[in-house]
Parts: sequence; C-alpha cells; structure tokens
Amino acid sequence: ESIVAYHERLDFNNDAFFLISMSIIIFMMQFGFAFLEAGCVRSKNTTNILIKNLLDSCIASIAYFFCGWAFAYGTRANPFCGFGQFLMIGLEPAQFPRWFFQFTFTAAASTIVSGAVAERCEFIAYLVYSTLISGFVYPVITHWVWDQSGWLANGPEGIQFKDFAGSGVVHLHGGTTALIAAIILGPRIGRFPDKKTGTPAVPIKGHSTPFVAMGAFMLMFGFFAFNGGSQGTLGRPGDGETVARAVSNTMLCSGWAAITVLLINKLLVGKKWSMLLSINAALAGMVSACSGCDALEPWACSVVGIGSGICYFSLSILVEKVRIDDPVDAIAVHFGGGLWGVIIAPIMMHEGIIYTGSRRAFLQWGWNLVGAAAIFGWSFLVMGTIFLILRITGFFRVPRDVELKGLDIYKHGEDAYPQIAYGHGWDKEEPS
Amino acid sequence: ESIVAYHERLDFNNDAFFLISMSIIIFMMQFGFAFLEAGCVRSKNTTNILIKNLLDSCIASIAYFFCGWAFAYGTRANPFCGFGQFLMIGLEPAQFPRWFFQFTFTAAASTIVSGAVAERCEFIAYLVYSTLISGFVYPVITHWVWDQSGWLANGPEGIQFKDFAGSGVVHLHGGTTALIAAIILGPRIGRFPDKKTGTPAVPIKGHSTPFVAMGAFMLMFGFFAFNGGSQGTLGRPGDGETVARAVSNTMLCSGWAAITVLLINKLLVGKKWSMLLSINAALAGMVSACSGCDALEPWACSVVGIGSGICYFSLSILVEKVRIDDPVDAIAVHFGGGLWGVIIAPIMMHEGIIYTGSRRAFLQWGWNLVGAAAIFGWSFLVMGTIFLILRITGFFRVPRDVELKGLDIYKHGEDAYPQIAYGHGWDKEEPS
Amino acid sequence: ESIVAYHERLDFNNDAFFLISMSIIIFMMQFGFAFLEAGCVRSKNTTNILIKNLLDSCIASIAYFFCGWAFAYGTRANPFCGFGQFLMIGLEPAQFPRWFFQFTFTAAASTIVSGAVAERCEFIAYLVYSTLISGFVYPVITHWVWDQSGWLANGPEGIQFKDFAGSGVVHLHGGTTALIAAIILGPRIGRFPDKKTGTPAVPIKGHSTPFVAMGAFMLMFGFFAFNGGSQGTLGRPGDGETVARAVSNTMLCSGWAAITVLLINKLLVGKKWSMLLSINAALAGMVSACSGCDALEPWACSVVGIGSGICYFSLSILVEKVRIDDPVDAIAVHFGGGLWGVIIAPIMMHEGIIYTGSRRAFLQWGWNLVGAAAIFGWSFLVMGTIFLILRITGFFRVPRDVELKGLDIYKHGEDAYPQIAYGHGWDKEEPS
Repeated sequence: ESIVAYHERLDFNNDAFFLISMSIIIFMMQFGFAFLEAGCVRSKNTTNILIKNLLDSCIASIAYFFCGWAFAYGTRANPFCGFGQFLMIGLEPAQFPRWFFQFTFTAAASTIVSGAVAERCEFIAYLVYSTLISGFVYPVITHWVWDQSGWLANGPEGIQFKDFAGSGVVHLHGGTTALIAAIILGPRIGRFPDKKTGTPAVPIKGHSTPFVAMGAFMLMFGFFAFNGGSQGTLGRPGDGETVARAVSNTMLCSGWAAITVLLINKLLVGKKWSMLLSINAALAGMVSACSGCDALEPWACSVVGIGSGICYFSLSILVEKVRIDDPVDAIAVHFGGGLWGVIIAPIMMHEGIIYTGSRRAFLQWGWNLVGAAAIFGWSFLVMGTIFLILRITGFFRVPRDVELKGLDIYKHGEDAYPQIAYGHGWDKEEPS
Repeated sequence: ESIVAYHERLDFNNDAFFLISMSIIIFMMQFGFAFLEAGCVRSKNTTNILIKNLLDSCIASIAYFFCGWAFAYGTRANPFCGFGQFLMIGLEPAQFPRWFFQFTFTAAASTIVSGAVAERCEFIAYLVYSTLISGFVYPVITHWVWDQSGWLANGPEGIQFKDFAGSGVVHLHGGTTALIAAIILGPRIGRFPDKKTGTPAVPIKGHSTPFVAMGAFMLMFGFFAFNGGSQGTLGRPGDGETVARAVSNTMLCSGWAAITVLLINKLLVGKKWSMLLSINAALAGMVSACSGCDALEPWACSVVGIGSGICYFSLSILVEKVRIDDPVDAIAVHFGGGLWGVIIAPIMMHEGIIYTGSRRAFLQWGWNLVGAAAIFGWSFLVMGTIFLILRITGFFRVPRDVELKGLDIYKHGEDAYPQIAYGHGWDKEEPS
Repeated sequence: ESIVAYHERLDFNNDAFFLISMSIIIFMMQFGFAFLEAGCVRSKNTTNILIKNLLDSCIASIAYFFCGWAFAYGTRANPFCGFGQFLMIGLEPAQFPRWFFQFTFTAAASTIVSGAVAERCEFIAYLVYSTLISGFVYPVITHWVWDQSGWLANGPEGIQFKDFAGSGVVHLHGGTTALIAAIILGPRIGRFPDKKTGTPAVPIKGHSTPFVAMGAFMLMFGFFAFNGGSQGTLGRPGDGETVARAVSNTMLCSGWAAITVLLINKLLVGKKWSMLLSINAALAGMVSACSGCDALEPWACSVVGIGSGICYFSLSILVEKVRIDDPVDAIAVHFGGGLWGVIIAPIMMHEGIIYTGSRRAFLQWGWNLVGAAAIFGWSFLVMGTIFLILRITGFFRVPRDVELKGLDIYKHGEDAYPQIAYGHGWDKEEPS
C-alpha cells in the first residue's frame, strides 16, 4: 500500500469518526429539547410534548432518507435545491458520515417548533409539519447555504453567506417557523386577559423547573458538538484549532449571555435571580455563536454573547406584549439569538467589519442580511401557508374541552404521573 | 522512528480512542435502562430498581475483571469458552481498550433482566443473577460468536454466525433470561385477575412517563455507540464508512419501528397515540438493527424496522395474554427485537438471500437460526436453573407484605420522594 | 507537503479531537453535580441549587477567560503561578483545545462546593466564591502540579507530585473548600438537636432519590472522560493503552468502593441496602482513581477502591458526628476520596512502594503528602478567609425566615414544582 493511499484512508476514517461522534452527541439535543419543553408545560400535557420530541427524530430520519437529503445535498443540484439520491439510492457510502451528521441537524431543526405550539396543537398537525420541515423546508435552506451550488453560497464577488453552524440555517428558520405557528395557532385559553369578556388571565406555569434545567444541560452538551462538528473535517490544516475555537467560543458566548440576562433581570426587571431566563439566555448565546464561532477571537464573544442576551430578553418581553403565546420562549431564543448571530458575525469575525472596515467586509454583512431575509421569508411563507391550511381545515388545534382538561389522557392514554402509581403502605417513611 | 512503526502506533491509538469513546457512551445505557425501568414501576419501588441498575455496572466490572473476560476472550480457549487471564493477569495493555468496550456490553446485557422482575424480586437474588450473568453466562455466549475460536464463529463452510453488534448475543440472551425469570418469579400481586378467588386485577401503572422517555433517549444515545462501536477498529479500509452505515441504519430501523407501532396502535388496537409503545418499538428497532446494521442498504431498514415493530408489538400482547408479568416489556423488546434481528439480517444484508438467493446465503440463514436456538437454549437452561434454585430456596421473591407495601423503605430505607422533603412556607407561590 | 509536516498536523488534530470530545463529556459533570445535589435538597430549595450548578459553567468560562488560564498556564510563570495571556490575548490557537479542556476541569472544581452549602447560602456569596475559585484559587493549584514550572512538579530529585487527573488538584481542593465553607456557614436550622434550648433535630431529607441516581450516572459518564482525557495527548507511544487503563481502572475503583460500602452498611451499620451511600461510594472510588489510574494494575484497584469506600464512609459518619452539615456528603466524597487517592497512588502504582520499596518510591510518597498538605492549606486558608469575610459582612447566609420557608420562591421567583401546573380535568385517569 502506498503512503498516499494510507494517508487518504486515515484522513477519511478520522473525518468519519469525528463526524459520527459529534452526531451522536448532537442527537441528544432531542433529549434536551424534550425536557426543556416538558418542564415548561403543565403536567396534563407532558406526555404530549415528550412524544413529539421523541418522534421528531424518527420522522426526521425517514423523511431525510426519502427526500430530505435529496433536496439538500442530492445530485442534479440547482441553486435552489438538490434533486437526486432520493431514498439514499446512489449515495456513496463515503457520504454516510455526512448523511448522519446532517440528519441530526435536521432532527434538531424540526424540534424547535413543538415548544411554541405546546399544549394546544393537534397531533395530526404535528405529524404533518414535522414531516414537511425535515423532508423539504429545512433541507432546501441547507442547500442554499451549505451546498456548493446553493445561491447563498455563491454571492456577489464570491462572497458566501457566513453561517458556520446554523444561526440562520437552523435557528432563524426554526424560530421563524415557531413564530408563524404561534401566531396562526393563537394563545392557550386563559393565557392573556380577554378584553371582550373582561375575563382575566389564568396563571399558567411549567410543571417542572428541574426538567427545564435538565434539558438545558443536555442542549449545551449537544451544542458543543453542533458547533464544533460543523467544521466537518478533522484532517485539514487548522481543523483541530478551529474546532477548539468553536467550542470555546460557544461556551463564552453562552456564559456572557446568561450573566447578562441574570443581572439585567435582577437589577432592572424581575428583581429576582431567574433561572429560567438565565437558561434561555445561555441557549440564545449558543444559538448566536453558531454563525461565527469558528472565526471569533475569544474577547469578541463578549459582544456576541451580551448582545445575544439582550436580543433574547427584549424579544421575549415583546412577544408577550403583542400577545403571542410561546410556552417555552422558543421564538425569543431561536429567532432572536439566530438573527443576532447572522448579523453580528460578519462584524466581529476575523476579516470582519471591525478588523478591516473594507468594502468586502460590508458586502459580507449585506449578504448575511440578504440571507437572513431569505430564510425568514421562505420559512414564514411556506410554513405559514401550511399552518393556515391546517387551521382552515380544522386540524391545527385541539378542541376547547381537550385543551382545558389536558391532552395526555385524551390523546395518548398515558398520564405523565398516574396517581395510582404513587404512595406506599408503610406507616412511617422509614421503619427503623 | 520508521514510517511503519509510526503508522502502527497511529492506528493503534486511533482504534483505542474510537473504542474508548464509544464505550463511554455505551456506559450511559445504564442510565437509560435505569430510568426506562424506574418510570415503569410504582413510586414505592423506584429506589429498588435504580440501585439495581447502578450496581449492575459495579458488579459487572468486578465480575468481568475476575472471570468474565477470561471466559469470553481469555487465552487457552476452546470452542465453548476461554480460560485464561483471570483477574486480568497476563492481559496485554494493548487489549485494555477492548476490555473496557466488552465490559460496557456486559453491563448492558446484565441490566436487561432487572426490568422484567421489577417490584417483586429479592435483592439477594439480584446480586446472585447479576454476578452470574456478567461473570459467566453472557461471556460464554460472546466467546461463541465473537472470539475466533468460538464454535458459532466457525460454522460449516467457514460461515460465521452473523451478529454484528449483538441482536442475538446481547438482546436475545437478555430477553430470554428476562422471560424465564418472569415465568419462574410469577406476576406481581394483583397484576392479573385471580380465577380461583375471582379477585379482579388491580390497575398497575408506572409512576413517571417522563422517566421512561428520558431512559429511551439515553438508550438511543448508547445504541448508536453500541452498534457503531462494534466495528471495533477505525484504521482499516472501509471502517469509517461501515461505522457511519451502522449508526444511520440503527436510526432508520428505529424510526420505522416506532412509526409502525404508533400507527398500528392508533388505527387498530389502542386507538390512541401511545408514547410508551412507540418508545419500546423504537428500542426494539435498534435491537433488531444490531445484527446487520453494518451490511444493510438504507432502504432495507424499512423491512427490518417495520418487522421489528410488529414482532415487538405482537410479543408484547402475547406475553400479557399468557399472563407473564413484565413491567417494562423487556421480553418483547429484547427477545422479540433480538430474535427478529438474527433472523432477518442474513436475508436482507449484502450477499444475503434477497441479493443472491445462493446456497451459501441460505446456509448463513440456517446458521443464524442454529445460533439463535443455542443462545436461547443456553440462557433458558442455565439461567432457568439458577432462578429455580433461587425460588426453591426462597431467595427469589420478597414477602407478600413487602411487595404490597413497597420495597424502597423496607429494603433500602430510602423513599424515592420523601413527603417531608416537599412543600414550602410561602403563602402564595410567588411573592411579588 | 512533507511526510513530517503531515504527521505533525495529524497528531495535532487527533490530539485536539481527543481533548475536545473528552471535554464535552466532562462538561456533563455539571449536569451530574446539579442533579446529585438537587436530589439531596428539599423541594423548596431545588431551583436555588440548580441555578448555581448552571451558572458555575458560565461564571467559570468568563473567569477562566479573564484570568484563570493566566494564573494556571499563562506565560511569565513562576513556581507559584503563571501571569500572562490574560483575556486569552496572546494565546496560540494551538492551545485552544487545552484551554477548553482545562476550563471544563475548572467548572467541575468550582461546582463541588455548592452541595455542602446548599439550602442556606446567599446567592451573592455564591457568585463571589465561584468567581474566586475558578478565576484564581483553583488555577493556582493546577499551576503548582500540572505546569512544568510549578513547584509541586519540580520536587526533590526530580520527583513530581503524582496526581494524574486531580484527586488532589481538583477533589481535595474542592472537598477542603466544601469543609471550611460548611464549618463557617454552620448547619441548617434544625439539622442537629440544639443542646441549649433542648430542641430536637428536625428530619431533613432530599426530595428526589431518582435525581441523585441520575446525577450519579452522569458524573460517572463525566469521570471516564475526566480520567481518560487527562492523558492529554493521543499520538505518543502508549497513549491509547494508558487512556484505556485509566478508564478501566476508574470503573474498577468505583465498583469496589460501591460494593464495599453497600456491604458494610448492610451488615454493620444501617442494616439496609442503601443506594445513596453506594452512589457516593462509587463516586468516591472514581475520585480516588484520579491520582493513579494511569499507572495501576487492575488488581490494585481493589485496594484503591475498597480503601476509598472506607474513607468515604468513615468520614461521612465523622462529619455528622462533629456536627458539620453537608447536605450532599461532598466533604466525605471529595476530601475523603481525594486525600486517599493522593496517599495510595504512590504506594500501589507501577514503580510505587509495593513494587520497589525504594528510597525514591518513599520520596514520591512523601512528596505527595507535602502536596496534599499544600493543597489543603491553600484551600483552607484562602477560601476560609473569603468565607469569613462573607460571614462577617453578613453576605454568607440567607435570613432565618427565608431558610425556613425556602429559597426558590423568595430568591428566584421560580418554584421547582408549581402546584397550579399539576392536575388534569378528566374524571378517570384513562377514558377508555
């Protein structure tokens, strides 16, 4: 065997191992989203939100197998989408590591929405939108940005939309979809005071703060692999450095965002040390880090992170002000954090505006704005149309009675915490 | 240093890293089983099931150190078992990565049983069977199949029992053991109506659906490493591709199985969107994937997965029909999924029956049936004998009173949710 | 490209990937500590303990960015500390993998304390001590031991303080800090009988045994990467073997410790099969493994593990006897396990006292005792001073009223399990 052949094999296998191990960790973002969301809903809707997050990975795998990959990275590609290798037929085994990596991204992308429509969305509607996002809508966006034939990857003067790990591709898309879904679906009964009848709002809270924390830790775990793994290879010069830079910056952006919102809320708004806000801010910081974490100096993470925290927090307040009901704050985290990431990366990154102030740097910034607008428009229009159709046909929202009594028992026959399963027969807690 | 020496070192270290990182992830299947099972039992038996899953890894490590490895892969091997390197003495440090990898498999194998005997099994009995499985019964099976001297690895005409990651070795064994254990132990009091006295069945439910979901996510996480890591090396030609194929196929089989059972149950049986059934189907799909995930085309996962879901679901119903009480459905998942995997892999895989229809392909299929019968027989007879002895000597089942009142406080002195630890002193939930 | 350049790049990228993937897993020790501790406190203080564990990683990242790395491994180093590369300015990108790895250690180190001061510590005090530990106190110790210019790394006759993964550096430090914190803070109200007033003790229990188990599994997950990753590189001869030895030994020490305490407690002390004690013993075993897991024969883990279990268990009883209140047993696990690790490694390891009995081996042992004393003294004095100042200024402990009613609602406005979020509107649990 020649040295060259050995090196090629070595590099290929190393890259494969890198992508696969990162993918396995990214998969755990399903766990993260599941429990972040489960903690934010009432106990009567817990099974409902958990099954959605569980099935997201199942549906995404099958949809990505059928056509998701084909539209994203399939052969016979045009600037808008790919169109080949449906059912993975004709896909080189050498591409399997990348397929699995991209599948975990797809599953993550399709999971973002379920939080925003929690506690009132029909299960059939969920099956429809989840399949469409993972089989078509999201793959098309990845094609634009991450396929070499995509139109956003071929901007003016050779500029590419800068989005290393998906602030725009994954999170702005997911956040936009969550936004339009929450608008069309409408708020949970009693979430806001009814001006017509004068009925006051009912206090609604999530049933398990520990579950939210658990989900957050797991999402952070996944985010490191999400952002580090986006380097895609391990064998090229600088790969190791870049992956390390990406994960370090992801943590720093997250830390800055969490501390920022913790302090703003304590000093100015809620007057308490809020864990739920800190958690969402930490996640928003990681969302914002996606776009440029490979190309930021560590100090610049302060700007990205603090800005991300502020974006998240303002948007969270704004969403509630305009009476959009988002039980898990998915819009503020993913739309807010994602948009900020796409905007700030070309400013703060190496060869960005603050370093060079060059025409090219501004052009890069402009192209990122164009890309953000495109992702927003595409997600808003396509998913908005789908949600409208679901609403008009009466498949989008559960009946009023079911919403009030809870979805778990009616829809799934599985109570989260069946009362008959609790208690014991001992007189004292601990016989001694 | 010569290039050859450098390459050898590089390959060795890469392989070691690959095996170790996969092993660390596989270890988390202990977490997965623990919470899948904890969610399926009543709160009064939660500590009892958790400590078993925790101690499984501890006991397995010591048993595998003492003699498990020796029987599985030790020197002085015959077709039935190895017989050397007890206490890891004489084991080359170069084998340590493999030792650790095989240990995590052993821990997983010994954990399958605890779910089927939950809520009524004596702790002493658990200590006995867990030690025996991880120190002897399971290692012997691995020797048959995965050691080059094993009899199933040396079939007629050079054919080897096809079981890449253990549909048969791990899961059929674990499922069979769970089956015979549940039969000999008998059902929980009140689980089935008593025909003699006419006492109706008591409704028994698991106490935490979220815990079941949590366990499922963690098991899926572990399964990717379980099936991907079974490639064993990273440096040979095709290793990277095969690992990627294995994990992708594992996900696809899981997805197909979950969707299949979700729909069958909704349309035909329970009329609800059941999460618990979907979860077990998803796991059964991964169990079935073990045998051939390295050698399936992605489309073939539909056959493996759908079949796996049907096997799981039918067996689950059958087990209940014949009044075997399996609180976590371990028999249906591991026996059903495992057996299906062993049977279907030689049909659907590359060079399998559907591709070639050759004599050799049928011979492979026959040898897999022989292997499945051998694993079933060995597990059934050896473990059945042990469980019978435990039953006869009165060590298998807790006293009736303890079963009714719950095991946690009596056996462990540790209530899962001590009432005195709950509540707070504030008038309202949130002082403003 | 020359072969030498290719090999250098390959080794660098492999090392980077190894460090980063281990770091991502180590990060999950935050999850582990969070839930281990959350399970040990009452429900009224759950959010409080979770937010601390969550913010630990955020604070540690920013503190380590500002000055932690600078004091630990920065340029312009002296035997006591480094003093360069503040704000990561001037830090070579090639060092980023190591930065991230060391950051995850720092976050873990700073998290140990929160358990010992749970349910009564002021949030401001937490912010202060967490920042100081991760920005200064812990980094200085790492400099002593793990930087080539550190004084403990340059002992007499070229001997180095033997502490592969931090039994002393991380755990003895953390355990000492937990000890002095718990002493200065004083016990929770009602934890011990009041001799003056004759008031008896109030029973205090953790609110969720499952959370403790969950935290334990996650900590074990992290520990494998903690101890395996401490090899630091993957490309040198023997690296793969050593990493595998480290993780295998970590498991064996853990297993021995858990079984030891399980049996001692069942047979001699509590007369029950205690899960909580087994869990803490398993963790103490891993803590003790840190120091020498790279250099122990597998059989020697029995000595390390059994000794670790005994140390943990005795210290746990002693701490309670002298009326120090440590809600999560952090002192016994980390101080006990850590100190035992530092003492036993030079005895049992390759070229240790039992193998050679040489003057040099005894010198190594003596130097480890010197190092343990130094780490204890430094942590005790510096952190003791800080805690004393906090106490004198009234920032260390929450008001009596808040402690009695619980911290979650008053401090954070976020109840762990808001009552209004529970219940459903269906007459029966499952309409059929």
